[in-house]
Amino acid sequence: MNIADLRTRHPDHFRKATALRVLALDAVKAANSGHSGMPMGMADVATVLFEKHLKFDASTPDWADRDRFILSAGHGSMLIYGLLHLTGYQDMTMDQIRNFRQLGAKTAGHPEFGHAKGIETTTGPLGQGIANAVGFAMAEQSLQARFGKKVVDHHTYVIAGDGCLMEGVSQEAIGLAGKQQLGKLIVLWDNNGITIDGKVSISDVTDQMARFEASGWSVFSCDGHDPEAVDAAITAAKKSPLPSMIACSTHIAIGSSAQDTSKGHGALTDDQLIADTRAAYGWENGPFDIPADIVESWRATGARGAAEREAWEARLATLSGAKQAEFARQIAGDAPKKLSATIKALKKSISEAAPSVATRKASENTLAVINPIMPETLGGSADLTGSNNTLTKDLGTFDADNRAGRHVSYGIREHGMASAMNGMALHGGVLPYGGTFMVFTDYARPAIRLSALMNQRVVYVMTHDSIGLGEDGPTHQPVEHLAALRAIPNLRVIRPADAVETAEAWEIAVTSEGPTVLALTRQNLATVRTEHKTKNLCEQGAYVLADADGKRRAILIATGSEVEIAMAAKALLEAEGIGTRVVSMPSMELFAAQDEAYRRRVLPAGPVRVGVEAAVQQGWDRWLCAERGNWKKAGFVGMDSFGASAPYQELYQHFGITAEAVAAKVKSLL
Amino acid sequence: MNIADLRTRHPDHFRKATALRVLALDAVKAANSGHSGMPMGMADVATVLFEKHLKFDASTPDWADRDRFILSAGHGSMLIYGLLHLTGYQDMTMDQIRNFRQLGAKTAGHPEFGHAKGIETTTGPLGQGIANAVGFAMAEQSLQARFGKKVVDHHTYVIAGDGCLMEGVSQEAIGLAGKQQLGKLIVLWDNNGITIDGKVSISDVTDQMARFEASGWSVFSCDGHDPEAVDAAITAAKKSPLPSMIACSTHIAIGSSAQDTSKGHGALTDDQLIADTRAAYGWENGPFDIPADIVESWRATGARGAAEREAWEARLATLSGAKQAEFARQIAGDAPKKLSATIKALKKSISEAAPSVATRKASENTLAVINPIMPETLGGSADLTGSNNTLTKDLGTFDADNRAGRHVSYGIREHGMASAMNGMALHGGVLPYGGTFMVFTDYARPAIRLSALMNQRVVYVMTHDSIGLGEDGPTHQPVEHLAALRAIPNLRVIRPADAVETAEAWEIAVTSEGPTVLALTRQNLATVRTEHKTKNLCEQGAYVLADADGKRRAILIATGSEVEIAMAAKALLEAEGIGTRVVSMPSMELFAAQDEAYRRRVLPAGPVRVGVEAAVQQGWDRWLCAERGNWKKAGFVGMDSFGASAPYQELYQHFGITAEAVAAKVKSLL
Repeated sequence: MNIADLRTRHPDHFRKATALRVLALDAVKAANSGHSGMPMGMADVATVLFEKHLKFDASTPDWADRDRFILSAGHGSMLIYGLLHLTGYQDMTMDQIRNFRQLGAKTAGHPEFGHAKGIETTTGPLGQGIANAVGFAMAEQSLQARFGKKVVDHHTYVIAGDGCLMEGVSQEAIGLAGKQQLGKLIVLWDNNGITIDGKVSISDVTDQMARFEASGWSVFSCDGHDPEAVDAAITAAKKSPLPSMIACSTHIAIGSSAQDTSKGHGALTDDQLIADTRAAYGWENGPFDIPADIVESWRATGARGAAEREAWEARLATLSGAKQAEFARQIAGDAPKKLSATIKALKKSISEAAPSVATRKASENTLAVINPIMPETLGGSADLTGSNNTLTKDLGTFDADNRAGRHVSYGIREHGMASAMNGMALHGGVLPYGGTFMVFTDYARPAIRLSALMNQRVVYVMTHDSIGLGEDGPTHQPVEHLAALRAIPNLRVIRPADAVETAEAWEIAVTSEGPTVLALTRQNLATVRTEHKTKNLCEQGAYVLADADGKRRAILIATGSEVEIAMAAKALLEAEGIGTRVVSMPSMELFAAQDEAYRRRVLPAGPVRVGVEAAVQQGWDRWLCAERGNWKKAGFVGMDSFGASAPYQELYQHFGITAEAVAAKVKSLL
Repeated sequence: MNIADLRTRHPDHFRKATALRVLALDAVKAANSGHSGMPMGMADVATVLFEKHLKFDASTPDWADRDRFILSAGHGSMLIYGLLHLTGYQDMTMDQIRNFRQLGAKTAGHPEFGHAKGIETTTGPLGQGIANAVGFAMAEQSLQARFGKKVVDHHTYVIAGDGCLMEGVSQEAIGLAGKQQLGKLIVLWDNNGITIDGKVSISDVTDQMARFEASGWSVFSCDGHDPEAVDAAITAAKKSPLPSMIACSTHIAIGSSAQDTSKGHGALTDDQLIADTRAAYGWENGPFDIPADIVESWRATGARGAAEREAWEARLATLSGAKQAEFARQIAGDAPKKLSATIKALKKSISEAAPSVATRKASENTLAVINPIMPETLGGSADLTGSNNTLTKDLGTFDADNRAGRHVSYGIREHGMASAMNGMALHGGVLPYGGTFMVFTDYARPAIRLSALMNQRVVYVMTHDSIGLGEDGPTHQPVEHLAALRAIPNLRVIRPADAVETAEAWEIAVTSEGPTVLALTRQNLATVRTEHKTKNLCEQGAYVLADADGKRRAILIATGSEVEIAMAAKALLEAEGIGTRVVSMPSMELFAAQDEAYRRRVLPAGPVRVGVEAAVQQGWDRWLCAERGNWKKAGFVGMDSFGASAPYQELYQHFGITAEAVAAKVKSLL
């Protein structure tokens, strides 16, 4: 449908939708950057969605049972800013719109979670929104299984563009959603045929409807400018028991001279073009000026859900007090009261038994005590369940037949898994954890970065964390991954040395804000924490595990599986009268966050310092040479190349990561 | 077809295929690890492929026009080792097979490029092989366009498993291949319905044939144990002008008690199981003992292509001497003689004109002189051509209608692009470069790692390399990416400071072994190399750009866009009488590779050192505190958080990366 027909046939709809279009034009013009064409093209679809389908109440943005709206095509951010402003979200003022893309504004270049209410997730890196949405939809089903349909029953809507669908992560999301039969997930594809470089056809000939259908979706199509057709398609999609994709045929930058061109994808800032477009729209108001009747109509849309929200509150109030409190606890993400004592008891039993156990197995043992008291955990693995040890007794498998199940068979989809976990955490009421081999954090990295940027509590259970993986060889052996993950701001990496530290690491992961990567071994490790301490020592990031006998001449700093090696090196050195402290450093980030006095106590000036980690040195110089260190007395025992394929004991010998090598390094520096 | 029928109906085929099966059983048993079931299941398909279709000559593994065989399901590595051994590749001895997965053996856990002839690419990280293969097939077409069908005309065959097809990168590869109509790419899908965690159906319901068809592929299916059906399917696929996918229905671990189970996916090491399986096969020889007639038959398969190879050599010899020399040069990857003088001339002209230009634009200007003299370059961008500046005059677009085109519209597929570039480099005769935003190296990271592991000459043109990207905000601003890339062993990261360094960086990238990441700015930078030097200073990784006037009290070390800031800080400091050296450090890896004497000249002990880079500090402590440094006199001006959305000049102020801040930092440390 073209602009003229739309104006004639659906005048009220047209004016509301066009308010979104001109706000996008005005804000992009003011910022002199951004993306005008997508909001212009999808304004009709979004208007129908918000006016007729989306369950929300602008006055109560955090209503737990609201439908979720995700703008996967995040570059079209002015679409969501316009919607939030017009429907009356308090924090999305016209001043914010005027300050689009300026420092400190809520209206960042791409929608940033936490900047404003109604932004359910950060989007912009393409494909992430649609993959997050799968997690939102899974969280809704999981929570519904726990609390009932009376209080949890909502849809997840996504607007996705061609870029989202070309990114590989979208296939992982589509496959996962299809298998999971997420009937309340509805994707509105902005089928405008245009990307930055030109027509979609210069790089892709995919029949998207056939592709989605091949993975178990219902598919629909409509003229994305015809409000009746859009309404009919969404209505039909809501009835499908399968996830639905609606191909919305649209014109990017509709009504402008840049319509249907890649120019229209970007920032339309030419004064004449904007004036001509306003004229084509019949829009007489000036920039950032919306006629009162349109504002009123949009505000009514924003208030439409108030009664339903009140009815929901009344239904919630009919639950038992205990159930209400539990619902509130899980939505708030508070740990259960029993957790602390449970972890302490586990630590005590480990210190007493002092088992030799792989930290991946210790992780399973910890989950075995956490999962029963935290029904909000939803675990899973990217087809390595037995290796990642993510499945504990009685969890059950989460799938279409069993929404009460708590372990997800994610398939060989590390990226999709991580993105879905972000969606679950953002949804609330679910604490997601998921496993794969540490080396495959590379596959999931864009989503891990977003966990950190959005500060979401997602737990990455990354096993086989070094050459200790053995025979699978260099493609499967992480070497640079600890450094690469530690480089991400706001990400907590914990590499526990034994089963006690593993229990502490999990306690931190499930009780702290933000994401945690647990780096866990394949191989067995001795218990080094044989003396029970109620305090969570890992919370300080590093601590003195064993101090020097007599004068302290060396400090060995190690993580994870190498702490055992450091302890053996200490024994060798002490036997020669070289007093040696061993510092276990499970988390560099947590240690860096400690105050100077504590850090000085752990790493005083003077002694030789040697770091031990079966990984690259990058990141270690801070602890060896800075922080009161001295480069002439600093050494590192680790990796400076990729690994190799062989039994792991041979690899440790081959690459020289042994107690003897550590002791020799110390002596060479004394 | 079951084992009994196969033995009866196709006895010769069965015995050859079963030689592969028992070698897999024997090697996995000896190693006590690995994957038995996949080679057992795909032995029939592989036997037909090698016996009847694959163009190769085991005596001349490097024959440039051989068909390429890629085992994307790399965990089934014993399949390719068995094939190479039996067909008579000299280096794949039975001793190597016996030493499967042992230190130093060519028979690593997963196939490693460079370990043995016939391993065309390193596989194991799932989905990479099929995505590499797209690049192989594109390289073949590109080379054919340059040298003619007489000397370049071969197929690329891939064996892919369910894991490969679930990984998102496979969708990017499928989409790219479909658009490019790569008719000589044939994927044999090991459709066994089993993954590590159980049946495929627990995590995926995708109709793979419909999925491939949706992206423009021809699809076929066959009983993967029936040699006639396999032969017919491959024959049909070869006739299609489109890329082909053959769904081969197979039984994983066929003939064993673990057949069709996830147990069969792993290492079958039980003595009774192995004995029973040998009995089911009617195999009477002991471990690693292949009957002579079977060896002979396989050797004949390995020699089958000798005549064709000789005919090809004869055809090659009919080309003009110049053409033959050029073919040899491009296949060898040698730079043209003119390159050095061309780069020097460019550098001279830049130093004289001293433009203010973004390094992404400087990169385009450099490509504008390289591309005309290096016809082997094949550029491209993941839908950011105008932003990455990868397209130079007269390149033309590489597509089905124009195989002589030299710029690829990769679509929004960073990972698929990187994997395809690996395939091109491995194929030989093509020097691939491709662009996206620096932040999206995260999306391509698994492939970038493989570029490094395989030491392939791939050039990553990564623009918008810091908060200098501006308004698009934190999702698009790399902060940790320089550190994360520098952490990868064997990867060369170069961040040039101006147009001269950009020219030098490109010279290094196209003449050195291994991959290079070029980190380039969006924003304009002043020319800092205003004095022409014929020597490539970037080759040393870091060098003194401007020495102190008088006594040297401070050394500023900076990269890329921050060199300009360091120079301004130097001016401020010198004005106060503080002698300040500025070291430009475009590549930490290259500097680390210099000898101690050179490094000491650049970074002598004594002065205050301040690093300046709009990125996280990780990796910098080596240059600030180690290497004759002193942590009390070391400082860093950069980022310690994610970025923000705003015009870039404001961001540099906001995050305190300014000449004033650098000067203040120096003064606080004096």
